[in-house]
Amino acid sequence: MGNDATTMGIKSNCHNKKLRTGVIGATGYAGAELVRLLLGHPLVELGPLSSVSFEGKALSEVYPAFYGLCDQVLTNEDEVIRESDVVFASLPHGLAEGIAKKCLEQGARLIDLGADFRLAEEDYRAWYGLEFQEPALHQRAVYCIPELHRERIQPDTAVIANPGCYVTCATLGLAPLMKAGLAVPGSILIDAKSGVTGAGRSLSQTTHFPDCNEAFAPYKAAVHRHTPEIEQNLSQLAGEPVRVTFVPHLLPVNRGIEASLYAGLKAGTNCDNLVELYREFYKNEPFVKVLPKGRTANLKHVAYSNYCHISIHPDPRTGRVMIGTVLDNMGKGAAGQAVQNMNLLFGLPEGAGISAPPPAV
Amino acid sequence: MGNDATTMGIKSNCHNKKLRTGVIGATGYAGAELVRLLLGHPLVELGPLSSVSFEGKALSEVYPAFYGLCDQVLTNEDEVIRESDVVFASLPHGLAEGIAKKCLEQGARLIDLGADFRLAEEDYRAWYGLEFQEPALHQRAVYCIPELHRERIQPDTAVIANPGCYVTCATLGLAPLMKAGLAVPGSILIDAKSGVTGAGRSLSQTTHFPDCNEAFAPYKAAVHRHTPEIEQNLSQLAGEPVRVTFVPHLLPVNRGIEASLYAGLKAGTNCDNLVELYREFYKNEPFVKVLPKGRTANLKHVAYSNYCHISIHPDPRTGRVMIGTVLDNMGKGAAGQAVQNMNLLFGLPEGAGISAPPPAV
Amino acid sequence: MGNDATTMGIKSNCHNKKLRTGVIGATGYAGAELVRLLLGHPLVELGPLSSVSFEGKALSEVYPAFYGLCDQVLTNEDEVIRESDVVFASLPHGLAEGIAKKCLEQGARLIDLGADFRLAEEDYRAWYGLEFQEPALHQRAVYCIPELHRERIQPDTAVIANPGCYVTCATLGLAPLMKAGLAVPGSILIDAKSGVTGAGRSLSQTTHFPDCNEAFAPYKAAVHRHTPEIEQNLSQLAGEPVRVTFVPHLLPVNRGIEASLYAGLKAGTNCDNLVELYREFYKNEPFVKVLPKGRTANLKHVAYSNYCHISIHPDPRTGRVMIGTVLDNMGKGAAGQAVQNMNLLFGLPEGAGISAPPPAV
Amino acid sequence: MGNDATTMGIKSNCHNKKLRTGVIGATGYAGAELVRLLLGHPLVELGPLSSVSFEGKALSEVYPAFYGLCDQVLTNEDEVIRESDVVFASLPHGLAEGIAKKCLEQGARLIDLGADFRLAEEDYRAWYGLEFQEPALHQRAVYCIPELHRERIQPDTAVIANPGCYVTCATLGLAPLMKAGLAVPGSILIDAKSGVTGAGRSLSQTTHFPDCNEAFAPYKAAVHRHTPEIEQNLSQLAGEPVRVTFVPHLLPVNRGIEASLYAGLKAGTNCDNLVELYREFYKNEPFVKVLPKGRTANLKHVAYSNYCHISIHPDPRTGRVMIGTVLDNMGKGAAGQAVQNMNLLFGLPEGAGISAPPPAV
Repeated sequence: MGNDATTMGIKSNCHNKKLRTGVIGATGYAGAELVRLLLGHPLVELGPLSSVSFEGKALSEVYPAFYGLCDQVLTNEDEVIRESDVVFASLPHGLAEGIAKKCLEQGARLIDLGADFRLAEEDYRAWYGLEFQEPALHQRAVYCIPELHRERIQPDTAVIANPGCYVTCATLGLAPLMKAGLAVPGSILIDAKSGVTGAGRSLSQTTHFPDCNEAFAPYKAAVHRHTPEIEQNLSQLAGEPVRVTFVPHLLPVNRGIEASLYAGLKAGTNCDNLVELYREFYKNEPFVKVLPKGRTANLKHVAYSNYCHISIHPDPRTGRVMIGTVLDNMGKGAAGQAVQNMNLLFGLPEGAGISAPPPAV
Repeated sequence: MGNDATTMGIKSNCHNKKLRTGVIGATGYAGAELVRLLLGHPLVELGPLSSVSFEGKALSEVYPAFYGLCDQVLTNEDEVIRESDVVFASLPHGLAEGIAKKCLEQGARLIDLGADFRLAEEDYRAWYGLEFQEPALHQRAVYCIPELHRERIQPDTAVIANPGCYVTCATLGLAPLMKAGLAVPGSILIDAKSGVTGAGRSLSQTTHFPDCNEAFAPYKAAVHRHTPEIEQNLSQLAGEPVRVTFVPHLLPVNRGIEASLYAGLKAGTNCDNLVELYREFYKNEPFVKVLPKGRTANLKHVAYSNYCHISIHPDPRTGRVMIGTVLDNMGKGAAGQAVQNMNLLFGLPEGAGISAPPPAV
Repeated sequence: MGNDATTMGIKSNCHNKKLRTGVIGATGYAGAELVRLLLGHPLVELGPLSSVSFEGKALSEVYPAFYGLCDQVLTNEDEVIRESDVVFASLPHGLAEGIAKKCLEQGARLIDLGADFRLAEEDYRAWYGLEFQEPALHQRAVYCIPELHRERIQPDTAVIANPGCYVTCATLGLAPLMKAGLAVPGSILIDAKSGVTGAGRSLSQTTHFPDCNEAFAPYKAAVHRHTPEIEQNLSQLAGEPVRVTFVPHLLPVNRGIEASLYAGLKAGTNCDNLVELYREFYKNEPFVKVLPKGRTANLKHVAYSNYCHISIHPDPRTGRVMIGTVLDNMGKGAAGQAVQNMNLLFGLPEGAGISAPPPAV
Repeated sequence: MGNDATTMGIKSNCHNKKLRTGVIGATGYAGAELVRLLLGHPLVELGPLSSVSFEGKALSEVYPAFYGLCDQVLTNEDEVIRESDVVFASLPHGLAEGIAKKCLEQGARLIDLGADFRLAEEDYRAWYGLEFQEPALHQRAVYCIPELHRERIQPDTAVIANPGCYVTCATLGLAPLMKAGLAVPGSILIDAKSGVTGAGRSLSQTTHFPDCNEAFAPYKAAVHRHTPEIEQNLSQLAGEPVRVTFVPHLLPVNRGIEASLYAGLKAGTNCDNLVELYREFYKNEPFVKVLPKGRTANLKHVAYSNYCHISIHPDPRTGRVMIGTVLDNMGKGAAGQAVQNMNLLFGLPEGAGISAPPPAV
């Protein structure tokens, strides 16, 4: 009904050929995970990949795991945009508006794994110190955790802001509680732990093996930039402004986030019903598994996958509940969810290419 | 003033010979750490060691690190008690009363690393399902985190209840705040993470390397037995009953605990003064280091030592503070603190044998 | 030509339905990896799974990674055999002959991941202390590393002996050299390191996290039972008897084997040609990647996959070469290769279900 | 006999004050371990510390483990030399001659942890591409693994070349065999694995946590610069030129080296006597422990210590022996051995400050 993609200046998807997917920032960890997923996706074709640092090198020189499987030479962002139906960008903040503009001009869609399209302008300004350069572009962008917002994606959606890893974890874990209005306002506290891939491929002393191995500490306690994105999501769910204390920690494992989500429960809340409430909320969601009472979500059980596990732990002595939520920061927390959003955008089966079970061990 | 040890039926410490120290349960992890510390202690002599599982074997068959350094043959608890001036017991709960009785009969002091002498009877009953068998013994026992309770140890103290690892961490981290009355009652929340030695030497699937490595999860969320001991300490400090939500997690490192301690601050609390408050509180304590603003406590920096680091992280947006506290679960959290208590009991320099700096990496 | 499967008493593969695959020993690590691969295999159907220890429980109770993805209740081996076209058995040695017999009686094929069908009888007796109970069965079994022996698998093959993990690694790494006759007889030395999943799911002190983490040691030096299987393969390739020194080590990672394979080179061997020799040998093999000069095989780059990387490192000073070879002990070293063998046996594309690229990080 | 230190222009050690020790390169890992050991050494005093990168900062800003224990401000090398009786230098190669010259001028002794004084000039030239700038200095330097060369250290020794970590491990493990003339010339092969502190504090992709964790690979196979130093030691022991194949691997643990040392045994060698031979060789050496038959050296059992464990594993099938040797690359392999050499040089008890038993776990 007017949402005809062709008329919107978007490259038409000729149905006799596969969707062509490109990645800008393919040599970052999330970029490399995107490549892996797209290579294995049955309904798309991997197009060009770009990297500022490694342009002209083969991807497999940077990531030997791809040797003989994806030896593509890395190119620049312009070629990626020109040659792709859909572009994934995995870049530091501040660069995505420019890319989005070019994508629109070239008729490609953009799925942005960075922060630039996630926040309302006042939050973006407050936490990143930057203004929107192209406010009109933000009108054409949608923010989407598929389990909560998939209806936001329309055939003419130009840009999808792919949510942050901590944010996805905290939001999925708290959504049923917030939606049901059971949490005491102001009581939400998020103690999260991320595997080291979450800190990216760039070198730092903190992530130097001898300093990081056998170590554990919080970082950016109460000042991490994922805070306003979490609050934005929870406020929408609760229908009132929500503020949270959010403290991330660096965990000496490669992949996975565990968020221990604490909430004070309103008087009269029946703790025994919470598992059922969560199961009902997620009953049609293949990627979110609410564990039975007595089990505990462990990030190992979702690593290398697009799945999210949730376990519920009431503390009747203090009137709180702790909700353990785990996902793979590179999977459901980044590249997996980006593919899920791509599937939604192009009408592919939502789980295509991302439904493989996680390794058992 | 009547506190003459000899008149109390305690073995006199003939000052021409070193204090003789024995360990019951020497093949548990805490027991083995005690052996290491006592071997290196300049003012005591390592006496007999016992083990139910390995009696008759050399300690160095169980722990090859001691090969050629401590090849003592493991004996039974009776011999340990008979031959020692001070006995350390590191055993499952329910056994320490019997040992304490024998120690008193034989004139030895007991430092108990288990739970049996830590709690008031009602808490012990509620959380362990057991009664005190020998209530009189508990009159002669003192619970002691040296930085907070060292005056409880008197020359005639017969039994010292050595605090739990999580408990020491949470209590040291919260003590200045509770004592100053700055925390909102009911707001305390403890999200703690322990290295795997905290789970002991006994085998389990959870601690099997492939299941534990690259994994992370909470366990015993809000039902861990260290909860009442934490509440007992905090209530004493606050001068009013304190209840906490306590959620421990299993961390895939060998040694160390990190506790992220959250408290709501009473209106009017000046966050900027908290570091100074803590520094003042611990100014005479060599084992507790309050880090300057901007630094973060990391368990790596205290592993293999008796030190505790504390860092303060206010969240003015929500009116909370997060206090990062770290120690070595086997050091300050168990064997190191037990030696510190022994030093106090026998009038030795408090830091003797436990002041070595942690490895830098 | 008489190899008609139907006439051999084998269940016919009705081509309108998928091949039905069962796993005996599904709760061991290799069994669980088989389940993961079979769930993702596009051309087969996962049939029943058995476990002696967990019969009656859901697989996802043992491996929570399968929660909501494979909640099948574990059954017994008889049901697996009855309901499957092909049975994978992953069991301690000594049990496979009985299973093979039942499989033959029921018309199912067996792919055995254990040692029982791998060795000549004299070696089996010498290294395992057991006799063949059913010599006739061994006539119908073939041992197969697909890259070297795929022609051994015929339509009527009843049993496939799936090679050992260390053996696959050492054999693939040495095959081109042995086949070309370049190694000095008696000079082969294999220093191998395996991730801890190689030691299986059963608990032991050696694999208890605190004892295994931050540890490294050889084990079963020069007496490991994979030795005769390696020698059998290398002797066939060399066309003369080959003996090797084989020393495995336990490596504190979850998955992967690295074998540093040393050989003295015959006089006149041109070290500069070795990479080319290897590339020629494996030019048609999608799962074996010979790295260019200057790169080094790293087990991280093949973990969670069916790929094998080989790098060549000559030492002209001593006339030796070191060949670095890596694979995933659970993938190409066990379950992945078993699926590859299944694909060959049933005429499916050899890489079906096992061609996914490894994670880049 | 003329070896009077004072007459050699060396600062006299006034016996009423402690030896003053300085460290150049104190912020490298070996430098920081030296600081830890010197802080705990009962007979020396820690003097000034220098660092090019961090001059003017407190050591505890670089290594928070020292917070409150060693907050010394880092200075420059000149001050270290001026203010110390003995200087430890832990620097990249090529810098030690200049430091040695200054030390001699100022009357300080130098213990150099780098490569500059370890090799004969032709080997230094061949492997490092550099010439000796000050050949006379090398006359006043001795290379010393105390267990093998302690008599080389004389009261007037000006410079001690502290051996490399891999070299100490390989040499201690092979010394008794080489000395006894039991190894086939040309048969020695060293497959060594080092913890990541061995690669130093400088950042690199290889030692970035996500790339290094759950990874394992050889590096510098057969071209590592420790090769000539190993050969120099073994040749001296054997009394004939010895060449070895040496292949190091990067092991994802923090501390420790394991060397699997392979040698062909001369005909007639009785494998059963090897443990006895080794025990006799090291019978007076407190830091080298030859394990009984049936046990296996594990680097965990010597980590954080100055001890070395050796286990003997004959392979009668091939006429070889594998000798498992472990030590801590930062302890006996660097800083611990440097302190041991200092003790020898100044007539202190050889084990002072470095005899603490390793942690049991």
